Amino acid sequence: MDLSTPAGAAALRIDGARLWQSLMELARIGATPKGGVCRLALTDLDRQGRDLFVQWARAAGCSIRVDAIGNIFARRAGMDDSLPPVTTGSHIDTQPTGGKFDGNYGVLAGLEVLRTLGDAGVRTRAPLEVAVWTNEEGSRFVPVMMGSGVFAGAFTLAHALAQRDAQGTSVAEALAAIGYAGEDGPAHAIGAYFEAHIEQGPVLEQHGCVIGVVSAALGQRWYDVTVQGMEAHAGPTPMPLRRDALLAASALVAEVNRIAMERLPHARATVGSLEVFPNSRNVIPGRVRFSVDLRAPGDEQLLEMDTALRAACERVAAERGLAIDVQQVVYFPPQPFTPHLVEAVRTHAAGLGYSAMDVVSGAGHDAVYVARMAPAAMIFVPCAGGVSHNEIEDAEPAHLEAGCNVLLRAMLAAAGVAQESAA
Amino acid sequence: MDLSTPAGAAALRIDGARLWQSLMELARIGATPKGGVCRLALTDLDRQGRDLFVQWARAAGCSIRVDAIGNIFARRAGMDDSLPPVTTGSHIDTQPTGGKFDGNYGVLAGLEVLRTLGDAGVRTRAPLEVAVWTNEEGSRFVPVMMGSGVFAGAFTLAHALAQRDAQGTSVAEALAAIGYAGEDGPAHAIGAYFEAHIEQGPVLEQHGCVIGVVSAALGQRWYDVTVQGMEAHAGPTPMPLRRDALLAASALVAEVNRIAMERLPHARATVGSLEVFPNSRNVIPGRVRFSVDLRAPGDEQLLEMDTALRAACERVAAERGLAIDVQQVVYFPPQPFTPHLVEAVRTHAAGLGYSAMDVVSGAGHDAVYVARMAPAAMIFVPCAGGVSHNEIEDAEPAHLEAGCNVLLRAMLAAAGVAQESAA
Repeated sequence: MDLSTPAGAAALRIDGARLWQSLMELARIGATPKGGVCRLALTDLDRQGRDLFVQWARAAGCSIRVDAIGNIFARRAGMDDSLPPVTTGSHIDTQPTGGKFDGNYGVLAGLEVLRTLGDAGVRTRAPLEVAVWTNEEGSRFVPVMMGSGVFAGAFTLAHALAQRDAQGTSVAEALAAIGYAGEDGPAHAIGAYFEAHIEQGPVLEQHGCVIGVVSAALGQRWYDVTVQGMEAHAGPTPMPLRRDALLAASALVAEVNRIAMERLPHARATVGSLEVFPNSRNVIPGRVRFSVDLRAPGDEQLLEMDTALRAACERVAAERGLAIDVQQVVYFPPQPFTPHLVEAVRTHAAGLGYSAMDVVSGAGHDAVYVARMAPAAMIFVPCAGGVSHNEIEDAEPAHLEAGCNVLLRAMLAAAGVAQESAA
Repeated sequence: MDLSTPAGAAALRIDGARLWQSLMELARIGATPKGGVCRLALTDLDRQGRDLFVQWARAAGCSIRVDAIGNIFARRAGMDDSLPPVTTGSHIDTQPTGGKFDGNYGVLAGLEVLRTLGDAGVRTRAPLEVAVWTNEEGSRFVPVMMGSGVFAGAFTLAHALAQRDAQGTSVAEALAAIGYAGEDGPAHAIGAYFEAHIEQGPVLEQHGCVIGVVSAALGQRWYDVTVQGMEAHAGPTPMPLRRDALLAASALVAEVNRIAMERLPHARATVGSLEVFPNSRNVIPGRVRFSVDLRAPGDEQLLEMDTALRAACERVAAERGLAIDVQQVVYFPPQPFTPHLVEAVRTHAAGLGYSAMDVVSGAGHDAVYVARMAPAAMIFVPCAGGVSHNEIEDAEPAHLEAGCNVLLRAMLAAAGVAQESAA
């Protein structure tokens, strides 16, 4: 085939069975009895997974570089290695009760692209790269998305290395222990970054679409809210004399929901955690602490939601004679992906005949940090029931194959096809 | 003085300073550093408290009888001991972080009445009795109001004796260990029962009243409600696709409140306990369990509230596509007190010149069980801020004295004054 012609490029496909087989093989490292994976960042299981990837990448003709936060870059040389690489990747660490696909799919889809190009004897103008980012999940060490965060300058290497797990082990110690403390130095330039990932939500399945063209990642503001009322006995205290912290908190749970419902389709607002004190069935709650998680595609909208939340808290506090404290604890700015790369994903999905739709990423991903310093886009594929971070996480082999084919096309187009050898 | 004349009876008063001193002396047994009392039922501290009461009651000329559930009856003979006694009393067990007055006041007010009559050389036609009911609080052994419950036939002696604390010790074993396992036998008849108690609520203080004339104890229905929604990630799950168990539960918290607010002044409805699963800030709650406590002075109204609760749960479940399970776990019927004894409390409070108002008891008391088998009424006095079951529980000596004077009058009137000796 002649990949320099549209017909030649159109004929190239990844090997879906090989991709699936690699996913299943990696999933054996840390496999759980319920069919999931527990492979926490920088554990010996993580090392085994990394070693397997490195072995596979070397076999696919890659050179390997590890940076000081343990990110692995497997590079396939291009015709012009002075060009910044076209990079893909994700993570192979999992939640304690995680699945086989979250992160792992993005890494192994990248590997499958390189294998496919190797089989076809394709060389690209720019080099290609598969990144394995350290500790995306944040289950053992915070902050989450640690490797891509250091790479993109979201926080410093020193800050990340100093973090400790619940047993007191630092990131620096854990990296050294598994042999993945690499060389220090500035992040290298990336020409274009694509990340394939399961959606982790129900939208694609709901719409019967195979490819999600991810236009942006939602910005996030997280809060701790504390309502201070007055604890009293449920029996002897008449209704009008009460200052019930849970009644006030419940009004705010409804308000939080309304804040997002008024800003559909993309805004989201969630109270995921709520605790009542003293939490006794015949005592009027004196204090309630709850979390608020607000997400929106634009910073202006997110700030509107922040204002609405604070106004609701003030109103409820005044109406009910309670003190309500609101503390923002997390802020991630919204991250639009790079328009011409998003358009490329859309075009290649259409060219391959896959059903596709534009979506936003409600969750954080390594691509969200990489997008701060390089052109970036994401490719979503459905997962069963939208379920992720769960041992029952599942995905259709055909969908994983489709996403990988879109990745292949997008990377080829971004890197340029330099030469075709006989295949 | 001649107590057989209205003027003579009107002159008799209890000794408020002696009452206060006895309260403070009893409070030393199990005293906590914060000024409260921890004297759990059937512990050695409870024994010390009982022994002190028995010693005081004997010194006041009483005979002592202990029944099989450990209730102590201190009896002062009347002129006609074939008459059923006029009884007062309460409990001396406390909450783990209890106060000096809850229960103890009712017992020592009864003792003070007997001491006052002794000092004045008064004999009554019917015998008088002070009861110390076993395990009213239910902190160590359930059910609560155990001693009065067995006495009134609310549950059997065998059931009560078989209950075990968290360490596995049974009520029978604990009674034997402290030497208060008394004689088995049917409950004796009671001619009239009065119980003086701190209000444990804010109504008297709010109205600036010294005496609460308790017309009834509210009926209670307690429930466990479970809302089953669908757990999902807060980021990737759009608002319209959610089945958020906490959002539904919050709507029900507001409904529970409304159910009582529409039935003022006496109805009460409380969600005191609420738990969210998995209770993680970026996960949409999949399940919420909460308690509901409904109280009302009449059984018909309480049943209306039950119906309204179940209807609200069904409506919310249907509207939001969730499963909501409602289980009633406790039912106490409303207990009106005996009209002529309630009237006697009202009249004597007025006769003594104390400000008084009719109130209901929102909490359970031993009197509520005794009222099932004997004419009964209660006398409330204010406690500071309405706070009880707390080490900072406090009450005004003048209020405690006032309640005890009302008790004295009410008991004298019910028992009849038989004879005056020279005093």
